[in-house]
Amino acid sequence: MNVASSTIVPTEAVSSEGVVAAGVYVDGRRVASIAIDEASSWRGRPGHVVWIGLHEPSLAVLTSVQRQFHLHDLAIEDADHAHQRPKIEQYGDGLFIVARTAQLVGGSIAFGETHLFVGEGYLVSVRHGASTSYAPVRERCESCPRALARGEDYILYAILDFIVDNYSPVLETIQEEVETMEALVLANGMGRAQIERLYLLRRDLLRLRNAVGPLVEVCRRLEHDNLAMVRASMQPLFRDVTDHVKTIQEQIDSLREVLAFAFEASLLVGQAQETAVSKKLASWLAIIAVPTAIAGIYGMNFKHMPELHWEYGYYMVVGIIATTCSVLFWRFRRAGWL
Amino acid sequence: MNVASSTIVPTEAVSSEGVVAAGVYVDGRRVASIAIDEASSWRGRPGHVVWIGLHEPSLAVLTSVQRQFHLHDLAIEDADHAHQRPKIEQYGDGLFIVARTAQLVGGSIAFGETHLFVGEGYLVSVRHGASTSYAPVRERCESCPRALARGEDYILYAILDFIVDNYSPVLETIQEEVETMEALVLANGMGRAQIERLYLLRRDLLRLRNAVGPLVEVCRRLEHDNLAMVRASMQPLFRDVTDHVKTIQEQIDSLREVLAFAFEASLLVGQAQETAVSKKLASWLAIIAVPTAIAGIYGMNFKHMPELHWEYGYYMVVGIIATTCSVLFWRFRRAGWL
Amino acid sequence: MNVASSTIVPTEAVSSEGVVAAGVYVDGRRVASIAIDEASSWRGRPGHVVWIGLHEPSLAVLTSVQRQFHLHDLAIEDADHAHQRPKIEQYGDGLFIVARTAQLVGGSIAFGETHLFVGEGYLVSVRHGASTSYAPVRERCESCPRALARGEDYILYAILDFIVDNYSPVLETIQEEVETMEALVLANGMGRAQIERLYLLRRDLLRLRNAVGPLVEVCRRLEHDNLAMVRASMQPLFRDVTDHVKTIQEQIDSLREVLAFAFEASLLVGQAQETAVSKKLASWLAIIAVPTAIAGIYGMNFKHMPELHWEYGYYMVVGIIATTCSVLFWRFRRAGWL
Amino acid sequence: MNVASSTIVPTEAVSSEGVVAAGVYVDGRRVASIAIDEASSWRGRPGHVVWIGLHEPSLAVLTSVQRQFHLHDLAIEDADHAHQRPKIEQYGDGLFIVARTAQLVGGSIAFGETHLFVGEGYLVSVRHGASTSYAPVRERCESCPRALARGEDYILYAILDFIVDNYSPVLETIQEEVETMEALVLANGMGRAQIERLYLLRRDLLRLRNAVGPLVEVCRRLEHDNLAMVRASMQPLFRDVTDHVKTIQEQIDSLREVLAFAFEASLLVGQAQETAVSKKLASWLAIIAVPTAIAGIYGMNFKHMPELHWEYGYYMVVGIIATTCSVLFWRFRRAGWL
Amino acid sequence: MNVASSTIVPTEAVSSEGVVAAGVYVDGRRVASIAIDEASSWRGRPGHVVWIGLHEPSLAVLTSVQRQFHLHDLAIEDADHAHQRPKIEQYGDGLFIVARTAQLVGGSIAFGETHLFVGEGYLVSVRHGASTSYAPVRERCESCPRALARGEDYILYAILDFIVDNYSPVLETIQEEVETMEALVLANGMGRAQIERLYLLRRDLLRLRNAVGPLVEVCRRLEHDNLAMVRASMQPLFRDVTDHVKTIQEQIDSLREVLAFAFEASLLVGQAQETAVSKKLASWLAIIAVPTAIAGIYGMNFKHMPELHWEYGYYMVVGIIATTCSVLFWRFRRAGWL
Ligand SMILES: [Mg+2]
Ligand SMILES: [Mg+2]
Ligand SMILES: [Mg+2]
Ligand SMILES: [Mg+2]
Ligand SMILES: [Mg+2]
Ligand SMILES: [Mg+2]
Ligand SMILES: [Mg+2]
Ligand SMILES: [Mg+2]
Ligand SMILES: [Mg+2]
Ligand SMILES: [Mg+2]
Ligand SMILES: [Mg+2]
Ligand SMILES: [Mg+2]
Ligand SMILES: [Mg+2]
Ligand SMILES: [Mg+2]
Ligand SMILES: [Mg+2]
Ligand SMILES: [Mg+2]
Ligand SMILES: [Mg+2]
Ligand SMILES: [Mg+2]
Ligand SMILES: [Mg+2]
Ligand SMILES: [Mg+2]
Ligand SMILES: [Mg+2]
Ligand SMILES: [Mg+2]
Ligand SMILES: [Mg+2]
Ligand SMILES: [Mg+2]
Ligand SMILES: [Mg+2]
Ligand SMILES: [Mg+2]
Ligand SMILES: [Mg+2]
Ligand SMILES: [Mg+2]
Ligand SMILES: [Mg+2]
Ligand SMILES: [Mg+2]
Ligand SMILES: [Mg+2]
Repeated sequence: MNVASSTIVPTEAVSSEGVVAAGVYVDGRRVASIAIDEASSWRGRPGHVVWIGLHEPSLAVLTSVQRQFHLHDLAIEDADHAHQRPKIEQYGDGLFIVARTAQLVGGSIAFGETHLFVGEGYLVSVRHGASTSYAPVRERCESCPRALARGEDYILYAILDFIVDNYSPVLETIQEEVETMEALVLANGMGRAQIERLYLLRRDLLRLRNAVGPLVEVCRRLEHDNLAMVRASMQPLFRDVTDHVKTIQEQIDSLREVLAFAFEASLLVGQAQETAVSKKLASWLAIIAVPTAIAGIYGMNFKHMPELHWEYGYYMVVGIIATTCSVLFWRFRRAGWL
Repeated sequence: MNVASSTIVPTEAVSSEGVVAAGVYVDGRRVASIAIDEASSWRGRPGHVVWIGLHEPSLAVLTSVQRQFHLHDLAIEDADHAHQRPKIEQYGDGLFIVARTAQLVGGSIAFGETHLFVGEGYLVSVRHGASTSYAPVRERCESCPRALARGEDYILYAILDFIVDNYSPVLETIQEEVETMEALVLANGMGRAQIERLYLLRRDLLRLRNAVGPLVEVCRRLEHDNLAMVRASMQPLFRDVTDHVKTIQEQIDSLREVLAFAFEASLLVGQAQETAVSKKLASWLAIIAVPTAIAGIYGMNFKHMPELHWEYGYYMVVGIIATTCSVLFWRFRRAGWL
Repeated sequence: MNVASSTIVPTEAVSSEGVVAAGVYVDGRRVASIAIDEASSWRGRPGHVVWIGLHEPSLAVLTSVQRQFHLHDLAIEDADHAHQRPKIEQYGDGLFIVARTAQLVGGSIAFGETHLFVGEGYLVSVRHGASTSYAPVRERCESCPRALARGEDYILYAILDFIVDNYSPVLETIQEEVETMEALVLANGMGRAQIERLYLLRRDLLRLRNAVGPLVEVCRRLEHDNLAMVRASMQPLFRDVTDHVKTIQEQIDSLREVLAFAFEASLLVGQAQETAVSKKLASWLAIIAVPTAIAGIYGMNFKHMPELHWEYGYYMVVGIIATTCSVLFWRFRRAGWL
Repeated sequence: MNVASSTIVPTEAVSSEGVVAAGVYVDGRRVASIAIDEASSWRGRPGHVVWIGLHEPSLAVLTSVQRQFHLHDLAIEDADHAHQRPKIEQYGDGLFIVARTAQLVGGSIAFGETHLFVGEGYLVSVRHGASTSYAPVRERCESCPRALARGEDYILYAILDFIVDNYSPVLETIQEEVETMEALVLANGMGRAQIERLYLLRRDLLRLRNAVGPLVEVCRRLEHDNLAMVRASMQPLFRDVTDHVKTIQEQIDSLREVLAFAFEASLLVGQAQETAVSKKLASWLAIIAVPTAIAGIYGMNFKHMPELHWEYGYYMVVGIIATTCSVLFWRFRRAGWL
Repeated sequence: MNVASSTIVPTEAVSSEGVVAAGVYVDGRRVASIAIDEASSWRGRPGHVVWIGLHEPSLAVLTSVQRQFHLHDLAIEDADHAHQRPKIEQYGDGLFIVARTAQLVGGSIAFGETHLFVGEGYLVSVRHGASTSYAPVRERCESCPRALARGEDYILYAILDFIVDNYSPVLETIQEEVETMEALVLANGMGRAQIERLYLLRRDLLRLRNAVGPLVEVCRRLEHDNLAMVRASMQPLFRDVTDHVKTIQEQIDSLREVLAFAFEASLLVGQAQETAVSKKLASWLAIIAVPTAIAGIYGMNFKHMPELHWEYGYYMVVGIIATTCSVLFWRFRRAGWL
């Protein structure tokens, strides 16, 4: 190990072109903040790990990073274009990993992407779109040098763990909304607003599933593939991330299925409501039928209609009408039609 | 084997921090109730098995257990946080197993979690949430020393068997409710209460499926993976548990599908009811049409309307109305519209 | 071979505790009817096969059988409790096989279970619930000694073949009912009775699928697993059973899917019927509108209404009403609304 | 090679018991038409291939064929009973292959079955049910001796290729009907006739899928399993058949899914139509409401109703009614309700 | 390497029978435009690659190409007939690859097919149907000789990459249309035009899925199968294409599922609209019921009806009618029925 370097005082050097942080670590402690161009010289020294964080970097910065670590053209192209599926690719003895991040912004999920280049002595993270800064990861790692001292595979673990942990609050918020909605739906059926919300939740959960699903395979390969990069002692850590991703995936699938149940319940509630309205309609029609028919008959202009001359004919007829309507009303009410 | 220890009289020592029971067994008989801190010293003696039962333990107790058996940080973290998927993980020569338990509480399923640490000479169970105590397992094991004498893999089997057996009453209750509901639905379609119940049953069964499903893989691995922990003679026992879990899973899947059928049948019944209401409505409308039209016509005030002056005109018209309405009523009834 | 034993005259000895038949066969011919307790002594002799048939035996009988053939506790427990999934389990050099049987009882499927213990020189069948007796299998086997002479694996084949063949009449009856129902549904949509029948058929077919499905795996293992029990020359027989089970399974799946189509067709037919009723309703409403409006107007009591004093006013108005109603009626009829 | 036999003039000999053709081929040329009983003697000669075609043969003929080529009892049983799934089975060094054929008969698919026995020096085809004769295959093969000279595996390929090619016209006809139907459905929704047609098409496609699906596996095994029967140079031919079956399967699946889309579109169209009818109904009701209410009021017999005595009261009221109705009509029309 | 040939000036020679381009490349530079008949002589020279592009060629041209590169009859047959599934087939040491291309033509997807023959020293592309010319690929390759110099596997990559890249604009356009439609649907439900569009989009996406899906397997085999044709250094390129195809496939699946959600949302919106119309209908019916009943009663011709003689009877009745109707109207409006 180059002891000299470990005595250098760490300094902060953030570039305007998308470089968030670039540091060198020895034994889990930051020994230098460096410029991209110096990276390859630091990386070479035994026991040194270069950790660079970029946010939507310019192509110039990416190309500069590429030169430092001899990264493959295709991986750099992906990191520049973004819109990749979560995946893990091995180029020579380096790894290229893509993960999608999720955050709740104004009630709907905003997705981001993180690209990670990892190799002997370095890790470069590239963030795109809506995505929390990895400053907390850096701080947590720096506050625990013993863990960080394990090297670049530990940093990789820390970032993936952070990404996966950040799915949870998103899911919890959706879970709560789904629970509120299901109470509403079962009570009153779905109005326009609920239908729209149901639709958007299903779409968002589908996208979240697409973001989380392939990550299972990424973590599984980090755990099982005996990559040169990942020491055996780190495999339980990646197994733990795999496990958390699977839990997230199960929750997403459950929510998706629950929303499908809610749709079907809503269809039944809606059908019941429509039938109730039709029953009301039929009941009123039957009730009006009585005065319409009776009054119509006594409104005819026949010369010879004896009832018209009875002294209490009018009261009798009004009584018959009132009684019949009341009986009908009462029977419809009892039958649950009114 | 340490013969001395097998002469110690068993005593009960339950801690207030979540320790339910902690005993040492030799040849299937409890030889001591111990404190957590003594566990590692007992565990080391040949033929001795330490069996510790915890219920929502404090982190302090968990950490103490961890020290005794050199458990992995990640497993302890899982046991502390709960909310894990059923799984089996090997750490060194110890196993960490998670299972979900289910109980009916007030008509809906309450879920709990059990975490098991098993290794050479020890088994630790950690219960979370709604979950039956394992006291019956302990009693049954202790009442059959010959079986218990087989060691920690037998205890593991006994607990998993107990968990799986406890799914059955839950399912039977749901099964009965589903059968009651299907009779109701086929007779009258679904009202608001049935729709809500259908929805909740589907949601509960989905959760139960998530709880039971991954356990198949856990048991299968205990049966097939030739784990150092599990002696060959125990494999038929774990195969039996696997088989019971699969039976449970099949019952859950059947119930889920039957509820989907019930939903679809309900949709058809609802549609038929709506059509029946519409037919009633149309029939009454047609019947009212007759007096409305006829009486309307003879209610007109034309000077020259000969019928109005006929002696029996009124009776004739009332007769025509009555006859026509009766014929219509009879035909609608015969056609099943009324 | 023990020649002496082959000269013993077969006698019938049916116990009251669930023993249907218990015989010893040599070279495909029954040489003795035995008591359970003698089984192990007969089984030991070269070329002898003990074939025992039980029907819902008492635990005592089962335990007695267990002692004779050294059967595993767990297998005996399954055979006692019933309610098992179809499966095949190897215990030492014996096999334990579970199959579900199906029979039509009063228009719905009644399920039974058969448990088979097979080993060198013996086969024990245990029947539970609705299940045809295996007397026909026994008779057929005894009538063809050359086949039966092949041994206990041939008996196993004969029973499985019998079980699978018995699914066919069940399916054919359901098939015919489905065809009757589909004609009805396409002609008139589903009434309450058809919906109930559709629901019950789907539930029965689901249960039948659960009964038949796992049997494919059982037969496949008898064909492929090179079990000590099954001689190579018998494998084409088990392949044939596998093939028949798969055919049954395909038919069940087809029927299930056809019923799903019937449900969907019924939904469309029901929707079309409802629309037809609404169209009728709207048509009659429009037709009544004419006399209602016109007669209403000429029923007003204005002093100055010249038409009322025309000599042919009344006839004119009645004519207009009749013409308009006829035209409307004719147009609605032409448009298919009436 | 037996040169003498190759000089024999081919003669036609069709039996009345189901033998369509039975010929011997050497170097791709027919050298003899034979009786079933001579088959085994011809088959033995080097370079000779016996090709027998049967159509619903009597059991006697089948048994005779069985004796000639030592076919297995179970295969003969299948060929006699028909109603088999597509499959390939190896018996000793012979193959038994089942395929289902499809033809359009009167707008719906009629299925047939073909059973093929192939072995060193012979091929026997057995046709059941609706199925094109293999005369065209025979003619095509005979017209190209170079190909036919390759032997019995080429004949097998030629027949399977013919069967698969015959699925295409069936599918094309269904495809065209589906396209006609989708235009109709999108324009007017489904009437009774379309619903019935949709139902029958889905049922037929399901059956076709069951007929075609397992054939993929049959062809794949002929291509990959290194069967003694199939020379390496023939494998691309079977790969080609596999590929065509997969294409057919994809088309069936697409059609099935398109019909599911058509069902769902039809449900929406039907719903839209019902809503349109309801809107019409509501509009007319509102329009009638005006004269009903106004004329009703002026039809009352109060002594003191000043309007009744106005000179132009009647015209005013009629005007008000006409105007209001027109305005309502115009607004409903503009809103798309009428 | 044949240096002489590399000095020949490239000339353009496009045949009228479907030959788009035919060139010879050495070290990534075009050294000659050739006639099909010369291909095999050029192909033999070390370091030379023949690249031929055909568009719906005549069978004569195809046969000529076949002779030059000894292509298999079945592959030529496929290339002549088109209507193939995407696939990769190895014939000797040559590859035959089929891919489907997609373009948007007038709002719906037009599909084409490309067939590629690749072997040591040559690549032949055959285009069918709606398909962009590969001129841009040729230009891009020629403008970067260093890449092209890698040989025929690079050309293969370049063409597949081009095909896959061309799916993206198609999907983006559909994506935008889906987003427009979902806004519309959630606001107003689906009209006839939207239902038709939904149906056609689902059908087109299904076809696109069938076109893209099998390509994953084609690319995966080019990446993993260690084909003689594909050098190790080219595998990351094919992995990149695989990855892009998978991304496309995920987008298609998402769109398909989103359209299924839209269908279901539309069903709910439609149901809500129908209920709203029924509520309006019922409200108006109830409101008309008031004047109908009251005016009907006072329109009766009874001699003894005291109200008729009250001075303000008429005003009172009109007042009652107006008040009741207003109250009803107001209550219905408040309840959201009007
Ligand atoms: Mg869940
Ligand atoms: Mg969960
Ligand atoms: Mg789930
Ligand atoms: Mg589901
Ligand atoms: Mg759905
Ligand atoms: Mg569902
Ligand atoms: Mg979980
Ligand atoms: Mg079941
Ligand atoms: Mg079950
Ligand atoms: Mg099931
Ligand atoms: Mg289903
Ligand atoms: Mg369903
Ligand atoms: Mg449905
Ligand atoms: Mg079961
Ligand atoms: Mg079928
Ligand atoms: Mg079938
Ligand atoms: Mg099927
Ligand atoms: Mg369906
Ligand atoms: Mg079949
Ligand atoms: Mg297709
Ligand atoms: Mg296709
Ligand atoms: Mg499909
Ligand atoms: Mg498809
Ligand atoms: Mg569907
Ligand atoms: Mg195709
Ligand atoms: Mg993507
Ligand atoms: Mg997506
Ligand atoms: Mg996507
Ligand atoms: Mg998806
Ligand atoms: Mg869906
Ligand atoms: Mg649906």
